[in-house]
Amino acid sequence: MKSAKSIDPAVIELLPKASLDGVETVWDRYEAQQPQCGFGSLGVCCRHCVQGPCRIDPFGNGPNKGICGASAETIVTRNLLRQVAGGAAAHVDHAYEAVEALESAAKGTINYPIADEMKLKQLAQGLGIDVSDKDKQELALKIVEVAYSDLANHENKPVQWLMAHAPRERIGVWKNLGILPRNPDREIREAMHQTTMGMDADPVNLVLATAKQGLVDGYSGLKLATDMQDILFGTPTPVITEANLGVLKEDFVNLVVHGHVPLLSEKIVYWSKKLQAEAIAAGAKGIQVAGICCSGNEVLMRNGIPLATNFLAQELAIVTGAVDAMVVDVQCIMPSLAQVASCYHTEIITTMPIVKIPGASHIPFTLENADQAAQEIVRRAITAYSRRDKEKVKIPNHKCKIMAGFSVEAIIGILKRIDPEDPLKPLVDNMVKGNILGVVGTVGCNNIKVTQDLIHVELVKELVKNNVLVVATGCSAHALAKAGLMNSEGTEKYAGEGLKTVLTALGQAAGLSAPLPPVLHMGSCVDNSRIGDLVTAIAAYLKTDSAALPVAASAPELQHEKALSIGTWAVTLGLTTHLGVVPPVLGSKMVTELLTKGLSDVIGGKFYVETDPLKAAEGLLEDIRAKRKKLGLPC
Amino acid sequence: MKSAKSIDPAVIELLPKASLDGVETVWDRYEAQQPQCGFGSLGVCCRHCVQGPCRIDPFGNGPNKGICGASAETIVTRNLLRQVAGGAAAHVDHAYEAVEALESAAKGTINYPIADEMKLKQLAQGLGIDVSDKDKQELALKIVEVAYSDLANHENKPVQWLMAHAPRERIGVWKNLGILPRNPDREIREAMHQTTMGMDADPVNLVLATAKQGLVDGYSGLKLATDMQDILFGTPTPVITEANLGVLKEDFVNLVVHGHVPLLSEKIVYWSKKLQAEAIAAGAKGIQVAGICCSGNEVLMRNGIPLATNFLAQELAIVTGAVDAMVVDVQCIMPSLAQVASCYHTEIITTMPIVKIPGASHIPFTLENADQAAQEIVRRAITAYSRRDKEKVKIPNHKCKIMAGFSVEAIIGILKRIDPEDPLKPLVDNMVKGNILGVVGTVGCNNIKVTQDLIHVELVKELVKNNVLVVATGCSAHALAKAGLMNSEGTEKYAGEGLKTVLTALGQAAGLSAPLPPVLHMGSCVDNSRIGDLVTAIAAYLKTDSAALPVAASAPELQHEKALSIGTWAVTLGLTTHLGVVPPVLGSKMVTELLTKGLSDVIGGKFYVETDPLKAAEGLLEDIRAKRKKLGLPC
Repeated sequence: MKSAKSIDPAVIELLPKASLDGVETVWDRYEAQQPQCGFGSLGVCCRHCVQGPCRIDPFGNGPNKGICGASAETIVTRNLLRQVAGGAAAHVDHAYEAVEALESAAKGTINYPIADEMKLKQLAQGLGIDVSDKDKQELALKIVEVAYSDLANHENKPVQWLMAHAPRERIGVWKNLGILPRNPDREIREAMHQTTMGMDADPVNLVLATAKQGLVDGYSGLKLATDMQDILFGTPTPVITEANLGVLKEDFVNLVVHGHVPLLSEKIVYWSKKLQAEAIAAGAKGIQVAGICCSGNEVLMRNGIPLATNFLAQELAIVTGAVDAMVVDVQCIMPSLAQVASCYHTEIITTMPIVKIPGASHIPFTLENADQAAQEIVRRAITAYSRRDKEKVKIPNHKCKIMAGFSVEAIIGILKRIDPEDPLKPLVDNMVKGNILGVVGTVGCNNIKVTQDLIHVELVKELVKNNVLVVATGCSAHALAKAGLMNSEGTEKYAGEGLKTVLTALGQAAGLSAPLPPVLHMGSCVDNSRIGDLVTAIAAYLKTDSAALPVAASAPELQHEKALSIGTWAVTLGLTTHLGVVPPVLGSKMVTELLTKGLSDVIGGKFYVETDPLKAAEGLLEDIRAKRKKLGLPC
Repeated sequence: MKSAKSIDPAVIELLPKASLDGVETVWDRYEAQQPQCGFGSLGVCCRHCVQGPCRIDPFGNGPNKGICGASAETIVTRNLLRQVAGGAAAHVDHAYEAVEALESAAKGTINYPIADEMKLKQLAQGLGIDVSDKDKQELALKIVEVAYSDLANHENKPVQWLMAHAPRERIGVWKNLGILPRNPDREIREAMHQTTMGMDADPVNLVLATAKQGLVDGYSGLKLATDMQDILFGTPTPVITEANLGVLKEDFVNLVVHGHVPLLSEKIVYWSKKLQAEAIAAGAKGIQVAGICCSGNEVLMRNGIPLATNFLAQELAIVTGAVDAMVVDVQCIMPSLAQVASCYHTEIITTMPIVKIPGASHIPFTLENADQAAQEIVRRAITAYSRRDKEKVKIPNHKCKIMAGFSVEAIIGILKRIDPEDPLKPLVDNMVKGNILGVVGTVGCNNIKVTQDLIHVELVKELVKNNVLVVATGCSAHALAKAGLMNSEGTEKYAGEGLKTVLTALGQAAGLSAPLPPVLHMGSCVDNSRIGDLVTAIAAYLKTDSAALPVAASAPELQHEKALSIGTWAVTLGLTTHLGVVPPVLGSKMVTELLTKGLSDVIGGKFYVETDPLKAAEGLLEDIRAKRKKLGLPC
């Protein structure tokens, strides 16, 4: 049976238009790629040297070793390590740019704020920096120094950002396994070396190296990036807006930000407000900024900018005919965008030196020229508006009210209104009592192999029905936002009784006349660090290992290497980590068992692969109940 | 027509024994892998996200884009960049270990020498370090500081090791192209990021990024590694010994070093001499150390240790039944070795934390425990000797006399005997006159896809016949050594008249009663930096761009990602770089033309792919003659 393309009504509405307009979409290309290579899907294809490609016969009739003698176990784990290193590299690169920005902002050489002095101080104290007698610029530079020194560490001491922020018990576990990273860049380089021809052939060693990359990602990628961004732009507080393509406005200049790093998109938001008059002069009613992927999540969290859509529908945003410009920075940007845009008036603008797309315009963005670049981009959108073909415009009338902005600080802020002295107490008490059965973080992407948003939404509905509090980031957050799981009505409609009681109390404490949503939007993919911080705080509060908590993670529709590295980090935290799409490891039974069973003996966490959302919910509930039982809590 | 497996007589002799002994070799596994995947071979298979694998139909009947919209151009160049980054990572990691060793040696915390004070001083001066009033420890630490600071550079300034050592004119070219690397680790991280899903889709941008990785490899990998190793262990001077499996001795403990980094193998050589008595007590006549791959080249160059064999025959060394222990460090180590060794008494010993092989013994090697580890390894070999089954021993009676140790310093040393004031003059004069038509560096691996050593040997015979001076490293050097191209007889037999005259004069100057060999062994794969130094010196002497010199490079049988990164570096130097095995790029005509033609317009060098050795020689000769013509030299 052929599965549906999407459960998103806007997507369902626009797909026929794409077809009529002669636009090839990701679903067409997916169909054209069928059948996909079974060797690659199982992870038993190796192209790491020029003697290959080599492939292991999964049925045992053909070769059981590569030319060099690498077994299926070796090939699968070598591929996995390199993919996870790719994900970690993406996040460390992202974080690095944010560190550079904070440095320059502190030095006053760029026009960026240092908006959150309180977070700056807290971070500095956590890193052991003396905060007395230092102004925010000095403190920022001290913090930058620590971040840079991790990247320049030539000794065997572990990454300081990890040591300052990871759960205490976990650090011991990682140390015993020999996987404490020293210097993120060195570890990435070493992982690349380790996976070249004639290097590691030991699957266990390779899986441990993969776990190390997860830690690189978690602390020198996600955590570092979020911390820097919060200091620069402010730590999110609750905002209310809308999600889905219906947020585009027929008579406004529609400017879509797409990618991952807020350094550019914050400037776009700023200049879109400033240049409203120019848009009006061009005949529009104003400028509407909306976001795709994590650039969208970043400006949503801090500025209440509406979400346009998530990964799989990025092309369809253009198919509305109403997007005047789409500006992209890094990651998850389909190269097809330029082709799609060529059927409309839309201007695709790339901005980063390592992301260019033939057929797109390129406006180089640097920290130094940020304001000029942002202005130019906004003006390009305004100019494009005048070229818009009204005949081709079709904005689906689908959007959903959402509440977002749930940083850990925002959550604690609400909890403080219940217990100012001991804010975590009401949360933990409700977990202990069972009103909150557990917490699941759903993260990651869309993946064309499954019906868009389906696993995210069905899994989460089942979880919240069973009183699991769900926190979400990335394209998972988009999916849940579009499906009505990020507003008070969602709580009434989907949450189990216990959870509803808690969310209603929290909603009241927050000064709302309605419950908090059943799913708390915690931000972008790098903001998975916020979920990590929450888990770390609860573990510390309960003086227990994070691996013992009734907490799990899920990447229901993982697509990107980053999702693999984030998932690996979640496993290192001791969490059962659900994957709703099968990663390319099944070619080795031994490795599959190691990742899904054996790992839990050594590191506490494990991967749990289940493509059926209801079964996955069942599995996660079982896991949560088992952990509750061990803690002596009612199940 | 099925091609022969090897031209190496020792290999031809041992293959039937392997078969009789029930040993599966790399040739068997290659056969079992046929037919190899055409998509992977053409470079149009993408597995960088979990939506894939995606494949472009090279015949144009199937998909012409990946699921994300990536074209064949994007996929091919993204794969290439990631492979070249893998090669660069391997070499930077190698260099890094050597920097750590020099640091600890200078601090006196490990038992390693600082053998070459002259090189230390020269390097320090080249780096702008004041050498007066500093002892060798202080100078070494100053140099280490520079090396580390490249790896910790957070600014936009280029790698200092490159700026101090690359040809002046080239630096300008690279700067204009925006490919001057800043910090090797940062560049590797960025390349990994750049090649993740939804990043760069521009093949030209990706090829330029690949060129940048070539520079990372050339200066922060090869050059840095060689410099550190020369300082530690001494800069090679001419040595005479033998090559091929016939160097193993029936009544000696045979201990084979295999891998790439001399930090361990130098200690093995030392302790093998020290522990001779224990071997004799065990019934042997002594201990014979021999080398495979670049660990072999390293101890050959500095200690005159004979070469056992090169990459493709590593398993056959064990099939002789006479190898008591094979100790490996990093890179090019077939995981099959443990399996092969299980048919004999041979002990396979892995030593590095990122290279383990199921079934092998693991003796952890660190700089601090180097002497203990080396002693333990030598003693394991002695113990294994007593288990040797004489019935199973068959040492092929094939070995060739070789002269090696031709560092640039050694070559200059010989030239100084002709012109003490202006040593390069005699060399350059002979190039100008045409006695030396040009210089070709042959480097790199064996590749199972072609008859072992054939392209190396046939290509080089044709080149030297045409008065091209050949310098060689890596497994290419092994191949040429085994084929008799590294001794005086080889000059008599194979060199053209002009070249013979020069080599005879040099031989006399060197105090030999015979000519220098037609192929100068310049060392290991990282010692390709020596070839780079030679080219740089000649360019500086002639005050011309290295791209204008009648010099070319060749990786006749490339196999490893390192060969791709070394080759890329050669192209950045402006050299026509021959590849005798087709790299996985043919899936894009545009990229293939960019790499083999277009690049020369922007960077001076280009790749030249030709699988027929005689045609390749013709092509390289043509290239050399064209360059001579441009310089106004006789062709």
